[in-house]
Amino acid sequence: MPEGTTASRLRLAGLSFLLQILTIILFAVFVRYSPESGSGPCSQQLNCSWKNRDLGFQHPRLQGRSEAGSTTVPETGFRHVHLQDLLGFGLLVAFLGRYGPGSVAISILVVAFAIQWAVLIQGFLYFFLNGKIYVGSQSMVSADFCTAAVLISTGALLGRVNPVQMLLLTLLGVTLFSINEYILLSLMGVSDSGGCLTVHTFSAYFGLMVSRILHQPHMDKRKEQQDTGHQPDVFTVLGTIYLWIFWPSFASATTVRNNAEPWAVLNTYFSLAASTLAAFVLSPVLYEESTLRMVQIQDATLAGAAVMGMAGEMLVTPFGALIAGFLAGLIPPLGFRFLTPVLRSRLKTQDTCGIHNVHGLPGILGALLGTLLAALATADAYGGRLELIFPLVAQGSRTATDQALCQLCALPVTLLLASLGGCLTGAVLKMKGLRSPPDTRYLENPGLREVAEEGGDRRASRKEPRTSTLV
Amino acid sequence: MPEGTTASRLRLAGLSFLLQILTIILFAVFVRYSPESGSGPCSQQLNCSWKNRDLGFQHPRLQGRSEAGSTTVPETGFRHVHLQDLLGFGLLVAFLGRYGPGSVAISILVVAFAIQWAVLIQGFLYFFLNGKIYVGSQSMVSADFCTAAVLISTGALLGRVNPVQMLLLTLLGVTLFSINEYILLSLMGVSDSGGCLTVHTFSAYFGLMVSRILHQPHMDKRKEQQDTGHQPDVFTVLGTIYLWIFWPSFASATTVRNNAEPWAVLNTYFSLAASTLAAFVLSPVLYEESTLRMVQIQDATLAGAAVMGMAGEMLVTPFGALIAGFLAGLIPPLGFRFLTPVLRSRLKTQDTCGIHNVHGLPGILGALLGTLLAALATADAYGGRLELIFPLVAQGSRTATDQALCQLCALPVTLLLASLGGCLTGAVLKMKGLRSPPDTRYLENPGLREVAEEGGDRRASRKEPRTSTLV
Amino acid sequence: MPEGTTASRLRLAGLSFLLQILTIILFAVFVRYSPESGSGPCSQQLNCSWKNRDLGFQHPRLQGRSEAGSTTVPETGFRHVHLQDLLGFGLLVAFLGRYGPGSVAISILVVAFAIQWAVLIQGFLYFFLNGKIYVGSQSMVSADFCTAAVLISTGALLGRVNPVQMLLLTLLGVTLFSINEYILLSLMGVSDSGGCLTVHTFSAYFGLMVSRILHQPHMDKRKEQQDTGHQPDVFTVLGTIYLWIFWPSFASATTVRNNAEPWAVLNTYFSLAASTLAAFVLSPVLYEESTLRMVQIQDATLAGAAVMGMAGEMLVTPFGALIAGFLAGLIPPLGFRFLTPVLRSRLKTQDTCGIHNVHGLPGILGALLGTLLAALATADAYGGRLELIFPLVAQGSRTATDQALCQLCALPVTLLLASLGGCLTGAVLKMKGLRSPPDTRYLENPGLREVAEEGGDRRASRKEPRTSTLV
Repeated sequence: MPEGTTASRLRLAGLSFLLQILTIILFAVFVRYSPESGSGPCSQQLNCSWKNRDLGFQHPRLQGRSEAGSTTVPETGFRHVHLQDLLGFGLLVAFLGRYGPGSVAISILVVAFAIQWAVLIQGFLYFFLNGKIYVGSQSMVSADFCTAAVLISTGALLGRVNPVQMLLLTLLGVTLFSINEYILLSLMGVSDSGGCLTVHTFSAYFGLMVSRILHQPHMDKRKEQQDTGHQPDVFTVLGTIYLWIFWPSFASATTVRNNAEPWAVLNTYFSLAASTLAAFVLSPVLYEESTLRMVQIQDATLAGAAVMGMAGEMLVTPFGALIAGFLAGLIPPLGFRFLTPVLRSRLKTQDTCGIHNVHGLPGILGALLGTLLAALATADAYGGRLELIFPLVAQGSRTATDQALCQLCALPVTLLLASLGGCLTGAVLKMKGLRSPPDTRYLENPGLREVAEEGGDRRASRKEPRTSTLV
Repeated sequence: MPEGTTASRLRLAGLSFLLQILTIILFAVFVRYSPESGSGPCSQQLNCSWKNRDLGFQHPRLQGRSEAGSTTVPETGFRHVHLQDLLGFGLLVAFLGRYGPGSVAISILVVAFAIQWAVLIQGFLYFFLNGKIYVGSQSMVSADFCTAAVLISTGALLGRVNPVQMLLLTLLGVTLFSINEYILLSLMGVSDSGGCLTVHTFSAYFGLMVSRILHQPHMDKRKEQQDTGHQPDVFTVLGTIYLWIFWPSFASATTVRNNAEPWAVLNTYFSLAASTLAAFVLSPVLYEESTLRMVQIQDATLAGAAVMGMAGEMLVTPFGALIAGFLAGLIPPLGFRFLTPVLRSRLKTQDTCGIHNVHGLPGILGALLGTLLAALATADAYGGRLELIFPLVAQGSRTATDQALCQLCALPVTLLLASLGGCLTGAVLKMKGLRSPPDTRYLENPGLREVAEEGGDRRASRKEPRTSTLV
Repeated sequence: MPEGTTASRLRLAGLSFLLQILTIILFAVFVRYSPESGSGPCSQQLNCSWKNRDLGFQHPRLQGRSEAGSTTVPETGFRHVHLQDLLGFGLLVAFLGRYGPGSVAISILVVAFAIQWAVLIQGFLYFFLNGKIYVGSQSMVSADFCTAAVLISTGALLGRVNPVQMLLLTLLGVTLFSINEYILLSLMGVSDSGGCLTVHTFSAYFGLMVSRILHQPHMDKRKEQQDTGHQPDVFTVLGTIYLWIFWPSFASATTVRNNAEPWAVLNTYFSLAASTLAAFVLSPVLYEESTLRMVQIQDATLAGAAVMGMAGEMLVTPFGALIAGFLAGLIPPLGFRFLTPVLRSRLKTQDTCGIHNVHGLPGILGALLGTLLAALATADAYGGRLELIFPLVAQGSRTATDQALCQLCALPVTLLLASLGGCLTGAVLKMKGLRSPPDTRYLENPGLREVAEEGGDRRASRKEPRTSTLV
């Protein structure tokens, strides 16, 4: 027993070391700071020529933002970046609070590595020129999105994979996420600035597929009983609060330009509010317990945020956001009641944190809503915004119907890539030598578990043995 | 017993559903996004004409901000809104941390509904044109203020009203708050950008009056013993920290313009610092216990913030803020020691979280200070700021003395409206069918209560059986 | 026993009162708001003349920022300040979470007083003109840095000094910190915008020296056993998260200008990521336990941040930040394993929170790295940045080698001042009448201690009886 533990401990140390060295070497060879932004007199010919024109490449998610930035007074870059990064890490924290409370240490390892790796992979896809990747604050923001997606995926697996597997999952997940995002945003010209498909749907089905491949009947059953009802409510409360504070601003940061009213921010707030009320409407009807748990409110909040990922910038009236948020808020209670048991027993897919109900289905609903809105898009309704939301339509190279078709096709493409990627990743994680039991001591933080056990001890009985935030 | 629980559970679900549907319908009929802010080429005649002039109506609290915004380079709108919303929700979180730790679920329900309702009511009062309400980020910010006021009011009632009553309180409280605010800011031209009277004083006396009407001798006595000393200190600590981070910037966000030094922000920080020291000076003298509890520091912090609500932008020297903060910090310990017992036994008004000492009295002190400063206001001392703080005085349509008189009159007006509104609301909440006991399981989050009970178990003895943050 | 408690209680109240009154008087006599920023028509001759030229004095740490500010459109001042203060208090919170979890009340007292005192002392050094100190948001930001340094210093002493001693430590620490900072930044022209030497190194050795002077063999031994392993992990998690969110933006806020890409922010993020991986690499090798504790990750995070204090703005390639962060992340595990026991047994210096490993050594490493980079600085590599980072080199009044020499000399100067200052402060704190035992009830928050004890109860065995976050 101690033998196995020591081995797995050293294996994690070795893999961390290897990956960090690999990243440092790749950074040393390829990554440079983007010189475009030098503001003083030119020191090199290269810098000067670059300073006078746009760099020519950028992450599609950040197109509007960057375009705006290049036309503004010099001073504005400063706070842009600070605020973006603040928001970005706030976003990660919200997911940490949700998917990592019992395993914060490992989740932080995932974040620390995923950010470095995402800067590299997305750099090769978007910011590669003359054999160098030019990074800047844009790289950090899109790396945040990518890291959030990986954290969501781990939500299906918490408690059943060991840290070494978690690191490999991060390595593959970041790569596959970036490829899917590149296909959708750059090749297909899909408008999905809040990550409805690229973040929520992709990560949910990727995580579920990995979970399916890793299915081990006996082990899962044991875990299941053990985990039921342990909930560190302090973290759930804080996670929900962080979501309310950071999510709307971040998810829509890239869609707001100039001094336009931030429809996407406001739509997201309205959606969050309506989805919260939906939880209070449906949960008491479905569950007999009289206590509405914080985790149910958090589920609704996340679903309300996910559904606005694509449509947030497209909705021209606030009541649309209220209706969409309300519908999204109904999904998690229904899903946990009727879908999760089927998923587990019939499809042999365990979903520790219920990411299917909270990210997968609301993401799909959001994508369908986005398709509908794209089909209805007219220059009259959007005015100057059209160029920002559907640049290809505004330029006349696509009709609104074509754009809607693209948005619709993006859904099966994402599902396909997520499933194939999940199979591949699951197969890698199942390789011999990695299958060691998840070394629970590593996954669990004794202090946190303590609080959780205290907190969940006298919990109200729940019909579904659900473990939304596993400890 | 289970019968009653099921009924009350379904009643809450039904009311939530009803209110959400009502809000959606009202939004669909009345609410549109403000078109003023489109930045691209005009798509409609309407948009164009609007873009070229000020929209003509706006929330008085945000006048300065908006005015500044309209003269700046286009790019600035972007972060404005993000930061404002960040700060706004940070503010709500601070109040959640304080007034909702034992009942976070219900408090989040209150927030989710109050925001929607406040956007509607304040929309009718400030942003109504041609049969439509035009909302924008301004609406969200002023809805945040309103929601904060409602959360303060619930502080007097926590543990003695059921969720259905809480929702009705929100419905009426938001409406009455908006009317009072409209009378003060728009009709009387009072300068109260930080909400000294409109938020702190109004909500404190509104909540106390509701508490008085709902008084039930036997019930209260039982509760009282039960609640003494349960304190989830984790939340108190976090709430205090959030206050320090978010309060000064938010409460003074609307008073800072151009590149003027942000006196209001700095004054509020100095006031917070001095009020904290005041708590350390007075508490050991009044209480024999040797432990200064976090909640006492939070009380002082809030009082120091409340007293700067009106005067923050008017004080031209930092030491004034230090003195005002120090005096405000002395109020809560004195109030809990001498006033709260009188309030409870003589006036039959229970005040669960002590909002009278923490918001009511410091708010009145702040209003008196603001009156004094308004009377002393001269163009010499304020320079260009005068136009921002006292626009009517700067325009010459009012003398400084008239302005001071207005500020002074605003106090009795607020007290009167708060009392009448509180009576009305209390009467509604007392209606038959609503008086069911507060269904403690709904109000209390088992996880949080656990932590709280552990935390408060071996508490130092307190002379006053005070329950600042009820569990 | 109760006698002593009452006396110490009243002594703290009296000292707080005295210091607050003293501060108010000094503020009343000396401190005025900086008039430079008035934006309206001039009300006084003085104001006008000031408005048309630079104020002429400013805090060196904020030089770049202010210079940028003075050339921009008027509107930008607004958010600058809000964001800065947000970040500043976020920074303090991160330190509160780390150094104050068991004594939050006293730590908040320290923060509240240190901010006022730092505004005064730094005002005399930097913003003094015609007998008045002109404060503005700059003062608040540099006061935040100073307060953070004092909080770090208390980390070596937690649990062994009483609140009265803590206040005196704050009084002297703030003064000495400001003098050291003034010598380094203003007199020697050292570039240290992130506080590598001024904050981390100074506060670590200052705190250690005070700890050495206050050494009491029997008492420390008793404490030691008592404190081992009590860890409120909730606060550690939150503190680490706050560090990730707020640190990079704040520590580099002053080095980012115009629309330059924020190298310092990005370097700090990369350093944090690499140092986190370093913790996962080294900890399992050095310690036999299989659980990586959150506090170890926090140590690595802080070390990764400290090492970027000086070099953050100087590194022109991201992989340099990865390497530096990785090396810094190796320091804390090695230090706690091999150095802390020597420090305690041989040098009789107890270091409650391990600030030597987490701030002292990484700070020195960062200073050496900064020296190296200063020596290598060329106009070619930095372009327009050179003026911002090394203004004296850019102006031609110094060669890069001279600048590097200055940076190097700053290290022994800081160590000397920290040691002498620590001796002096320790001697004052040892004075008769102050040596009363640390009145643990004051220092400890019962609620928090409860959580902590629960959390640490069944902790994994650690070889080193280390008490990173004392309760």
